[in-house]
Amino acid sequence: MGQDLVARARVAHFATADQYARPHVMPVVFVYDHPHVYIPIDRKSKKVEDWRDLRRVRNVVTNGRVSVVVDVYDEDWSRLRWVLLEGTAEVIESGEERDRAIAALEAKYPQYRTLSLEGCPVIRVDVERRVEWSSEEGSE
Amino acid sequence: MGQDLVARARVAHFATADQYARPHVMPVVFVYDHPHVYIPIDRKSKKVEDWRDLRRVRNVVTNGRVSVVVDVYDEDWSRLRWVLLEGTAEVIESGEERDRAIAALEAKYPQYRTLSLEGCPVIRVDVERRVEWSSEEGSE
Repeated sequence: MGQDLVARARVAHFATADQYARPHVMPVVFVYDHPHVYIPIDRKSKKVEDWRDLRRVRNVVTNGRVSVVVDVYDEDWSRLRWVLLEGTAEVIESGEERDRAIAALEAKYPQYRTLSLEGCPVIRVDVERRVEWSSEEGSE
Repeated sequence: MGQDLVARARVAHFATADQYARPHVMPVVFVYDHPHVYIPIDRKSKKVEDWRDLRRVRNVVTNGRVSVVVDVYDEDWSRLRWVLLEGTAEVIESGEERDRAIAALEAKYPQYRTLSLEGCPVIRVDVERRVEWSSEEGSE
């Protein structure tokens, strides 16, 4: 079930931490191409002039450990689900892999027809561990 | 606007990190009582027998730095919003403050009528920094 959830989800939450182990978390759009998650550094929600100054980018550069969670909230708590993807990340500024990820993002999100990803880097997450949970499966 | 968003939101995303600066992120229910966020350690989605073994709990105990993000995703990207709350956290197992937080959680989430919070601790986040963003306000 988790594969579907990750494939269908429109938004994920991306956690990073700095060198002092201070965590940071942001909602992100993404594409999943097993075993990678690609997160664009687009022009959508950035308060800083230079993308290199974004905290998620600085954290990825200084500390590559990241976590991504994809989940469904429902007021019926028997329908709660999440998939946690943990691994390492790096920023890819150019090249064939970056271009392929950008094309997949453009295919998934029609919003990029008006918000160009030209010149935008992506963060690639190498997923090393996956944990999933669903309240339908019961719990302790 | 962020105050409303935080007050109304039914789910948040809670990021912690361990002593090696490995981040972890989970969806959580919560109540906000300025300048605190209270997150229950309930029996809803726990794969471990003892709540003390939950990663979010271990991370809070070994490294009190946390981040909480409350956000709205909308396919109309001119309506995106988030509020990031950063601070320190601790686990409160009993006492008047824990009881008050539990009562506020029960008032916010009718689901707790059937999923008892009896004996459950709460994580208290002391919010030290708040950052908010809305695509309506424009961006770089």
